[in-house]
Amino acid sequence: MSQALRERLFSALDGLVLIDPHTHIQAQSPAASTLADILGYHYYTELVHSAGVPREEIEDPHIDARERVRRLVEGLAPLSNTVQVRWLLDMVRAFFEFPHDELTPDNWEALYDQSAQKMADPGWPEEVLRRSKLEAVFLTNDFDDPLTGFDTQVYIPCLRTDDLVFHLAKSSVRERLEKASGQTVKDISSLRSALSSLFEHFTRHGARACAISLPPNFSPQRVDIPQADTALQKLLSHGEATGIADMEQVSQFVFWTLAECCAEYRLPFDLMIGVNRGVYASGVFQGQDLFDSRVSLIQYRELFNALPQVTFPISVLASVTNQELVSYAWIFPNVVANGHWWYSNTPTTIEKDLSLRLEAIPRTKQIGYYSDMYKLEFALPKFAMYKRVLAKVLAERFVIDSGWSEEQAVQLGREVLRDNVERIFPPR
Amino acid sequence: MSQALRERLFSALDGLVLIDPHTHIQAQSPAASTLADILGYHYYTELVHSAGVPREEIEDPHIDARERVRRLVEGLAPLSNTVQVRWLLDMVRAFFEFPHDELTPDNWEALYDQSAQKMADPGWPEEVLRRSKLEAVFLTNDFDDPLTGFDTQVYIPCLRTDDLVFHLAKSSVRERLEKASGQTVKDISSLRSALSSLFEHFTRHGARACAISLPPNFSPQRVDIPQADTALQKLLSHGEATGIADMEQVSQFVFWTLAECCAEYRLPFDLMIGVNRGVYASGVFQGQDLFDSRVSLIQYRELFNALPQVTFPISVLASVTNQELVSYAWIFPNVVANGHWWYSNTPTTIEKDLSLRLEAIPRTKQIGYYSDMYKLEFALPKFAMYKRVLAKVLAERFVIDSGWSEEQAVQLGREVLRDNVERIFPPR
Amino acid sequence: MSQALRERLFSALDGLVLIDPHTHIQAQSPAASTLADILGYHYYTELVHSAGVPREEIEDPHIDARERVRRLVEGLAPLSNTVQVRWLLDMVRAFFEFPHDELTPDNWEALYDQSAQKMADPGWPEEVLRRSKLEAVFLTNDFDDPLTGFDTQVYIPCLRTDDLVFHLAKSSVRERLEKASGQTVKDISSLRSALSSLFEHFTRHGARACAISLPPNFSPQRVDIPQADTALQKLLSHGEATGIADMEQVSQFVFWTLAECCAEYRLPFDLMIGVNRGVYASGVFQGQDLFDSRVSLIQYRELFNALPQVTFPISVLASVTNQELVSYAWIFPNVVANGHWWYSNTPTTIEKDLSLRLEAIPRTKQIGYYSDMYKLEFALPKFAMYKRVLAKVLAERFVIDSGWSEEQAVQLGREVLRDNVERIFPPR
Repeated sequence: MSQALRERLFSALDGLVLIDPHTHIQAQSPAASTLADILGYHYYTELVHSAGVPREEIEDPHIDARERVRRLVEGLAPLSNTVQVRWLLDMVRAFFEFPHDELTPDNWEALYDQSAQKMADPGWPEEVLRRSKLEAVFLTNDFDDPLTGFDTQVYIPCLRTDDLVFHLAKSSVRERLEKASGQTVKDISSLRSALSSLFEHFTRHGARACAISLPPNFSPQRVDIPQADTALQKLLSHGEATGIADMEQVSQFVFWTLAECCAEYRLPFDLMIGVNRGVYASGVFQGQDLFDSRVSLIQYRELFNALPQVTFPISVLASVTNQELVSYAWIFPNVVANGHWWYSNTPTTIEKDLSLRLEAIPRTKQIGYYSDMYKLEFALPKFAMYKRVLAKVLAERFVIDSGWSEEQAVQLGREVLRDNVERIFPPR
Repeated sequence: MSQALRERLFSALDGLVLIDPHTHIQAQSPAASTLADILGYHYYTELVHSAGVPREEIEDPHIDARERVRRLVEGLAPLSNTVQVRWLLDMVRAFFEFPHDELTPDNWEALYDQSAQKMADPGWPEEVLRRSKLEAVFLTNDFDDPLTGFDTQVYIPCLRTDDLVFHLAKSSVRERLEKASGQTVKDISSLRSALSSLFEHFTRHGARACAISLPPNFSPQRVDIPQADTALQKLLSHGEATGIADMEQVSQFVFWTLAECCAEYRLPFDLMIGVNRGVYASGVFQGQDLFDSRVSLIQYRELFNALPQVTFPISVLASVTNQELVSYAWIFPNVVANGHWWYSNTPTTIEKDLSLRLEAIPRTKQIGYYSDMYKLEFALPKFAMYKRVLAKVLAERFVIDSGWSEEQAVQLGREVLRDNVERIFPPR
Repeated sequence: MSQALRERLFSALDGLVLIDPHTHIQAQSPAASTLADILGYHYYTELVHSAGVPREEIEDPHIDARERVRRLVEGLAPLSNTVQVRWLLDMVRAFFEFPHDELTPDNWEALYDQSAQKMADPGWPEEVLRRSKLEAVFLTNDFDDPLTGFDTQVYIPCLRTDDLVFHLAKSSVRERLEKASGQTVKDISSLRSALSSLFEHFTRHGARACAISLPPNFSPQRVDIPQADTALQKLLSHGEATGIADMEQVSQFVFWTLAECCAEYRLPFDLMIGVNRGVYASGVFQGQDLFDSRVSLIQYRELFNALPQVTFPISVLASVTNQELVSYAWIFPNVVANGHWWYSNTPTTIEKDLSLRLEAIPRTKQIGYYSDMYKLEFALPKFAMYKRVLAKVLAERFVIDSGWSEEQAVQLGREVLRDNVERIFPPR
């Protein structure tokens, strides 16, 4: 009974047209052009490497797309249990009628050719969107992205700010900032004005969010302006040789200023909390980051209190932090739970984290899921995974345990999957 | 099959007459007098506020009970998914025959009137107790509560000590202590004797527990007496202007002395571990506290070792700490697991935490549940939630997975729900 | 349906012949000689003590085996809910045809006599191995174990190194090291050579792993050799009176050198992370250790990066660390998830931890289970517990949720239960 119920709920949820509120799609080349763009997704390169294939073999710059796919497929067997490989199989079945149970050295070539043919069609990205029932996707734009040349109703800009907060000591970052803002950065005041002009630019081009990923030890603080100015002067003089304490002062100032700009320009500020970058320095591209589960939202106490007018959709990397997220979203009007991020984006963890959210956070304050994808083809299987778990939780905890009707359950699902994206990131 | 089994077990457990071992009931006005006492429970005010209603609207001192209920009901829709609203609906259905699926702006008035009429009956508190199958409830008494004017067999005193440990720097607290104890506090020795006299008073009036809630960074230490005396002298001179280190010395001394008094007067010491007070300073009344999940019971190592004769029923705020609690209760004879507290008091978290306890802590060392309620009407729906989860865990993990008979399962349920309350907090 | 499916999968898994990759078996007396060896397992003594029996009663040196069993059986009733007692009952039923539901003061004597008779048979250990479907078990050998007098194909040596890393300040440990290595330890260079000779000895005798248990605050660092030498000189002069900073320098040096020896001698290095020793100082033998869940694998970052050629099978004590373990094993080629240790070795925790591993770590990089037993009789019930959970997870998450065939599910189970032990700890 529970099984059939889950399937009915899944069907209803799977019929919804969605907006994906966080991706890494490049608006100018949103879909894959060969299977190498699919198997080159860091989930496959890092797992294949973790299971024994040397990084050099995977990242060899002298090989073409076809050879790269061949090498990656040869490394897939040890991953066949992972949900990431299930995404891959669900996807090639849905888009390329792949008829096999596994992708192996014996059957990848036909898939390569067939997919390359489809991907070559200029209408392919639109077809992927349509078949994935996606109306629009949020991007992750560099702060100096011109935001032109694409339809911002479908590819919605989002101002990504990691470089500004953590890498302003690099002259290349400052140059990009000065160029994008048309503002020479020489003190706190001109820095603030440069940052502000980015918001001006982004909101004029339809941006619906500002975003940043943060390491576990980051704790936003409002800094003393004269002190920040002194630190900034040192950073402007010494660049990457600036002392750590001064770098941190500047990071804090930039972060806080961004949050204030979010208030001024009425943009939600997506905080993605908990990643340590480059932990495995010899890992594959994008496969080097990990985390420290010893992080607490208490580190954000001052921020949440100081800026009640800014909505903070929060993603946490470690599932242990999910209970804090649930509690902070239940208490703070401006804290919202956002998706299931990265190492927490697997079915068992989603099931637990989602159950906690659905039973204690107001239904209007949770954004169910985002795909985090680099190529459009991944929305379909990743959202499908989420919807299966959502259907399970709604079936077991709401219909069976709490006596809800199926209609009520589907309505709750629709809100977290779709309505809240529009409620929390309203079009401008 | 599992569903029917769960229902049979629930029925059997639901027939038990219980004692609620931790509440905030006021013995002189134990039940609600209007629906405003129900909807004024912080779970509703804080969630309604979190979902968007300004605090001022909810806490406006110029409005009457009826208007307050109207405003709160208007904010309920976004919470309809939460277990807290399920408590509310289960309760108004059970006590006031509320016939609808949701409490809305269109149907609350009839409920308001009908409930007010029932609540006006002088026998209402007794009726609530009877229909909730509650024989007695533990109170949370201020340390200077006279403990007179009520039946301490039904409303069992419990000495709450947060003020003594954390707020002795306030002259008002010291005055209350001196008045209650008839003892001038001028040094460590007179402070100890004042504290001791509170235990004398409380145990003479049937108290069965001492209790305190503690922040995540608290770590009890036996302090050096001369040092504590010096710190106390400063506190007596400077009050709230006392330096933090001295305040902490005094806190430590008071805490340790309370624990020693628990030994002397043979009272269990309920430790409720992990709350940070006032994190959201602009939140509604009682809706400002949160937590930091980075806490460990290793912080209590010295205490548990030093006072083997004191039973410590432990509540943890973060579910991550539950595994430590299970392990410490499995090793230390004087550590007992106690209920499912606050942000951990939702079905999914209870299910996980309870499963861990039932499979590894001796059955005699776990207190299943307490309601933590402020008004008697909440015991019924909150205990019902717990009993549903308990029935599920007993069904799935004991009857199905381990081959227990239903009688064995119900017997285990009875122990954690009822017998252990009497075993661990024996009548005097 | 799910129930029958679980049983079919369990049956298939239960037919496998296994190697137990971590035990505390004494090769010279691997099986119990009376029921006192069974009930003397720390799980029973500590739980019986935790439930109220004084340590002295249990550990009284003047009583014989029979009386000790009598006393322990008298304390069992409060533990009847625990999985540990389930191990006991499953075991006495399997090996001694114990016909009752519980082990009580009324029925233990017949069991005592019957089991003593069987245990007296010289072929008993082999019979236990055979009936437990165990082909071999890994030992936990002191670093100065001669490793002679037993069949190292069945009782596989493993070099345990806690004493070397944490207790080298004790002259007894240094004397054992000098004797075992035939090397006078007078400086860093001779210490390194002494350690190296242990690996020589162990690998010559068929050792397939090096192992250590580590406290939560340990964070391996490659130390500066001159500094380490200075610290070692102090330790050689002052022994246990050496200052803490110097002791730590030496610990770090020894640990890092062991890891380098693992590289040189191609031994996996089992890290068992998170135990605090002696937390409950008055506890029974082996029932004094607990943990602090605030630990992170980020502490091992430098180690995992520096020695890519060493495989690190990692056990974590706190379940919260399991998500980090999953993520680190998914990224680092040399990190492997290993079993379910101690306080995480109960069904609910295994179910969650295992689900996370099976859905995100390559199938070749997870060692399903080890018994950690002291007497051979415990492998059967402990592995049975694990196999029941494994069958449940495979049934629910792979066959039902992901559409796998039962054969595919059993094949995955076989790999984590058996194949990976041979893959990760290859015979020499």
